[in-house]
Amino acid sequence: MTPADPVRRGVGVVGGSGYIGGELLRYLSVHPGVELRWVTAHSHRGERVGEVLPNLRGIVDMEFAGLDAAGGRLEEVDVVFVALPHNQSQEVIPRLSQAHPEVVFIDMAGDFRSADRAGYLKYYKTEHTAPEWLPRFVYGFTEFQRRALKGATLIANPGCFATAMLLALAPLARAGKLHGDLCLTGITGSSGSGNRPIQTTHHPERATNVRAYKPLVHQHSLEVEGFLKTLHDGDARLQFVPQSGPIVRGIFVTLFTPQLTPLELLRIYGDAYDSEPLIDVVDGSPELRWVQGTPRSFIGVGGDEERGGVAFSVIDNLGKGAAGQAIQNMTLALGFAEPDGLQWPGGFV
Amino acid sequence: MTPADPVRRGVGVVGGSGYIGGELLRYLSVHPGVELRWVTAHSHRGERVGEVLPNLRGIVDMEFAGLDAAGGRLEEVDVVFVALPHNQSQEVIPRLSQAHPEVVFIDMAGDFRSADRAGYLKYYKTEHTAPEWLPRFVYGFTEFQRRALKGATLIANPGCFATAMLLALAPLARAGKLHGDLCLTGITGSSGSGNRPIQTTHHPERATNVRAYKPLVHQHSLEVEGFLKTLHDGDARLQFVPQSGPIVRGIFVTLFTPQLTPLELLRIYGDAYDSEPLIDVVDGSPELRWVQGTPRSFIGVGGDEERGGVAFSVIDNLGKGAAGQAIQNMTLALGFAEPDGLQWPGGFV
Amino acid sequence: MTPADPVRRGVGVVGGSGYIGGELLRYLSVHPGVELRWVTAHSHRGERVGEVLPNLRGIVDMEFAGLDAAGGRLEEVDVVFVALPHNQSQEVIPRLSQAHPEVVFIDMAGDFRSADRAGYLKYYKTEHTAPEWLPRFVYGFTEFQRRALKGATLIANPGCFATAMLLALAPLARAGKLHGDLCLTGITGSSGSGNRPIQTTHHPERATNVRAYKPLVHQHSLEVEGFLKTLHDGDARLQFVPQSGPIVRGIFVTLFTPQLTPLELLRIYGDAYDSEPLIDVVDGSPELRWVQGTPRSFIGVGGDEERGGVAFSVIDNLGKGAAGQAIQNMTLALGFAEPDGLQWPGGFV
Amino acid sequence: MTPADPVRRGVGVVGGSGYIGGELLRYLSVHPGVELRWVTAHSHRGERVGEVLPNLRGIVDMEFAGLDAAGGRLEEVDVVFVALPHNQSQEVIPRLSQAHPEVVFIDMAGDFRSADRAGYLKYYKTEHTAPEWLPRFVYGFTEFQRRALKGATLIANPGCFATAMLLALAPLARAGKLHGDLCLTGITGSSGSGNRPIQTTHHPERATNVRAYKPLVHQHSLEVEGFLKTLHDGDARLQFVPQSGPIVRGIFVTLFTPQLTPLELLRIYGDAYDSEPLIDVVDGSPELRWVQGTPRSFIGVGGDEERGGVAFSVIDNLGKGAAGQAIQNMTLALGFAEPDGLQWPGGFV
Repeated sequence: MTPADPVRRGVGVVGGSGYIGGELLRYLSVHPGVELRWVTAHSHRGERVGEVLPNLRGIVDMEFAGLDAAGGRLEEVDVVFVALPHNQSQEVIPRLSQAHPEVVFIDMAGDFRSADRAGYLKYYKTEHTAPEWLPRFVYGFTEFQRRALKGATLIANPGCFATAMLLALAPLARAGKLHGDLCLTGITGSSGSGNRPIQTTHHPERATNVRAYKPLVHQHSLEVEGFLKTLHDGDARLQFVPQSGPIVRGIFVTLFTPQLTPLELLRIYGDAYDSEPLIDVVDGSPELRWVQGTPRSFIGVGGDEERGGVAFSVIDNLGKGAAGQAIQNMTLALGFAEPDGLQWPGGFV
Repeated sequence: MTPADPVRRGVGVVGGSGYIGGELLRYLSVHPGVELRWVTAHSHRGERVGEVLPNLRGIVDMEFAGLDAAGGRLEEVDVVFVALPHNQSQEVIPRLSQAHPEVVFIDMAGDFRSADRAGYLKYYKTEHTAPEWLPRFVYGFTEFQRRALKGATLIANPGCFATAMLLALAPLARAGKLHGDLCLTGITGSSGSGNRPIQTTHHPERATNVRAYKPLVHQHSLEVEGFLKTLHDGDARLQFVPQSGPIVRGIFVTLFTPQLTPLELLRIYGDAYDSEPLIDVVDGSPELRWVQGTPRSFIGVGGDEERGGVAFSVIDNLGKGAAGQAIQNMTLALGFAEPDGLQWPGGFV
Repeated sequence: MTPADPVRRGVGVVGGSGYIGGELLRYLSVHPGVELRWVTAHSHRGERVGEVLPNLRGIVDMEFAGLDAAGGRLEEVDVVFVALPHNQSQEVIPRLSQAHPEVVFIDMAGDFRSADRAGYLKYYKTEHTAPEWLPRFVYGFTEFQRRALKGATLIANPGCFATAMLLALAPLARAGKLHGDLCLTGITGSSGSGNRPIQTTHHPERATNVRAYKPLVHQHSLEVEGFLKTLHDGDARLQFVPQSGPIVRGIFVTLFTPQLTPLELLRIYGDAYDSEPLIDVVDGSPELRWVQGTPRSFIGVGGDEERGGVAFSVIDNLGKGAAGQAIQNMTLALGFAEPDGLQWPGGFV
Repeated sequence: MTPADPVRRGVGVVGGSGYIGGELLRYLSVHPGVELRWVTAHSHRGERVGEVLPNLRGIVDMEFAGLDAAGGRLEEVDVVFVALPHNQSQEVIPRLSQAHPEVVFIDMAGDFRSADRAGYLKYYKTEHTAPEWLPRFVYGFTEFQRRALKGATLIANPGCFATAMLLALAPLARAGKLHGDLCLTGITGSSGSGNRPIQTTHHPERATNVRAYKPLVHQHSLEVEGFLKTLHDGDARLQFVPQSGPIVRGIFVTLFTPQLTPLELLRIYGDAYDSEPLIDVVDGSPELRWVQGTPRSFIGVGGDEERGGVAFSVIDNLGKGAAGQAIQNMTLALGFAEPDGLQWPGGFV
């Protein structure tokens, strides 16, 4: 971070020591238009960022503050990213936003991604405590929400699986091509489970393994079905099978589209994404390593003109699936030029 | 190997230095009913097995012979496993079998898995050179072919993906439950590509990666569609997407069955497999690590009574997907008790 | 497990649901001379073994019992393996052994591996509570302790790192070739840390990582230095650096021996191990995959006649480093023929 | 890449489709002071960079040229990075440099890293064909060569293992603390072997494996011993054991220093690196993931005040071990401010 620059906009991060919070710091540290003013981390308050996240040593030169800093120093910032565990931001954001309604809040959790209160209870197993705030949030699936995001102050950043699914589904929905059962698998890396060790991310049991979990009942189905309905109100129903893969970063989604040929798919995705700076469409399968560590996405198309088509999407769950898309959304909310500060490459290997 | 034992049956392996050949040697070395008499490996003739495959040092105490050994020493064996690259066994097996029709030949390649000559040309890109032998082979998907395998002398061992798919599909086909598009993904380990280094198995490009390949047009679709037709002649059509995962061993198949509830699936699979010693059915997702290094399989069932069901199968591509199933087939062909020599566990991690 | 067989000796396992306990069950299930009578697991009492460890489904057909089973059913067994966390077996074993002194107890923990009570306090950070039992245990580094192990009833199974180091060090010590600083690194898989998830085995932080830990002060130094002194009383001092690798199973030890040429090393190791059924010596580097999943070990030798030599050892930390060596030790204690039930191969990949 | 900017200096890359070449493009694409003018790749001439290296799609918008471009378009550039296989740049660079002596050539291969012609023959197995050029090159171990690199036009970029070793060794050499046998291990990722698949980088044989290779006789010993002698002319002799790890990026070096305590090590490394923007010194072990994907390095110190000390260094073999250091060297050669364009973070996971 260079020293304070009057034209840079101020940014705060709530929950900066987790994987999503740390990735936000990483993206923010190289963004030319903003400056990090403070970052909170309850369990690490008073520690140097670079001690907790050595990848940021010498780059983010600051201490983690307590959550109270977020409340007390809102006048220093234009944007606050909230990277708390699910169910916490519904308490925090309304409180802070009421005090400073001019500040842009970008929520990284699942709290405000769908206005469907009953769905929230079903998938998140708890009553929403700020339901009246639900309709005030813009769902930040960037490429399809630019108009709504311009000037927005309350943004719900999509879930990682939701983003990967929507990249493949949204253009088809808009083209009126989605009907009936939508069969998708999504293989995800372990960083999507966060930084607290649990059995399914225990290295001996994950490192050479594949398993599925929550088949057909993953909570991201809620926001995906909700958002698709805003594009085309049909009978489409998700059949989504999430899978844990022995990788750290990335989501690989496969969408079966037997009703469409590969050529039709290429045309629809080309129309949707050819002018997008952070999304590429390829003929064939994309690969996770093309996007790991970055905010970029690839859509791929395969299949057989006779049997039908298949669509693929790949993202980094911490990139386009979290911090990368959040920075895109900040860019729009603040009126910056796109894709400022995001056009940097990952490694080929 | 213990020294020659009069009641042990003699076995030969053609192509014993590849991954499938080596895995056959591994299984054979612990089988109480057979004795390895010779093993060929063109590129390693004259070398000790334990020099080429150090995991077998002190266990298989023998030199690799040239292919001519297979021809010259057929009278020493009751069974020959042929683990040659695709398109080679169609030349070798007819020649050897004609000379010794009493010997059981188990082909590990794709040459004799389907009687559909046109399909062979389409998927394997070459004319079959022994088409008159195609109908003489028994397709060795063990659990559904026991009657045909008893006393068979020409056995086509199923492909690894085909085996994993059929474990999930065959019980549904027999129950008349398969119709229309059958959407499946299959994540495979790199050992399925054999021991010759290529770009897609190059460690830097595979180790943290996921990609799909040959979506909807994988050659194992041929044998799966062919075999399913023998169980139920419907309109079912495979939509199979193979995926390369960053694992060495194992295949994880996901089958979408929105037309069936989880409970119906559990009942059908229970009926099919409850008495099978090497197959277990679980409620939920199985895991690759439960079968790696073994001939065992797990079927899992998930989903939602409202949305529909999903079925999973996991195998080790070199175990049930190759050497393990071949040993099962040998067991049946020779009239041994099942699952002799196969009931050994892999590691939990 | 076949049904009760009068000639089979009875075996019990205390702590059978952890990685070492589960691996013991795996080895015992294929051993022709023993029969598992009971297995305890405090946190899983009443659950089927195959539910907790699906790799053993259909193979170990039994429920986990509570620890009291170990006390109440000692008359059913000839051998008890104790796979409890460190500091617990020093309470359990004396109590059980006093009641049934004829039973063989093989302790998998660090409690009885060194008679050095002060060293125990230093490395294990707690006072030993049964110091008078320390000298009664035989240190079970099998190949160098056969005489002491014959008929022993109290056996301390060596630690995994200790075993890998001693395989390289012990022959040199016996030959009087160890002096001064002995520089070794040891790369270990994550299964060595056990089945409870912690930060250093959290998949996102382990999967593509390497780090060292406890450099020069690892607790296995205690038993290694202690045992080496029984072979040759010199001034040798361990400089051992353990390293966490992104693997699940296996330890790769590198020992610097600038004072010896590769040829001298080959001669010494050949003398020590040429007649050992489970240890091979190779010219060059051994590889972890040659031993993963098995009780086997390889010693390798490299270097330069001018610069000096280097020695390598590879083991599976759960195989020769734990369960495999424990079975060897049981074999000796019970007077079985070696290497009964241990001569089975892992995969080449 | 932004469009041509008069103050940006022109850069060319010879051999841009390999892993080192691709990584150079990645670093150059985000460097504010330079502009890529052309890049050659013999086997991909005429193909778009983004087709061959999808991570650079939309970022490096250019075709690969043939090698002749390097000769024909030297007037467009101030710097040329030469990322050819070993033994090729000794032919290419002298030819190009003679025609344009004002251009800075940074050689990524081993051709000009040591003036010891006999050593070159010994380690690289071939006679050097441009020995008279050897003394004209500056060895680009940046932090110890700043004076020599300022204004240099012929720079030999150090090898990846050499860099990792020197980071630990050079400060001790300068302090006169290196004597006798210097025992080091270095675990490396597979990307260090380049993008051509070979058996030792074949995924099934690398993914869960560890092995050593060229113990004590690795070719980087030549440049390390040569450079150390320029710092302190003692009797120090490398005992270096390279190890292949199941990782893609990164080198982890362990250096045994029983003659120094941890506190002494911390002081020496602190003196050497405290003011270095791209190198951090930590008390304890560093981790590979802290540097993967970046030009940064960490030095760590461990051990025991009584037994002695150990030093660690970690780098990304493609970062500080290749492209990152090359950019540092370019920065010095062109007189840019350090560490311009290099102060960006990798991920925490």
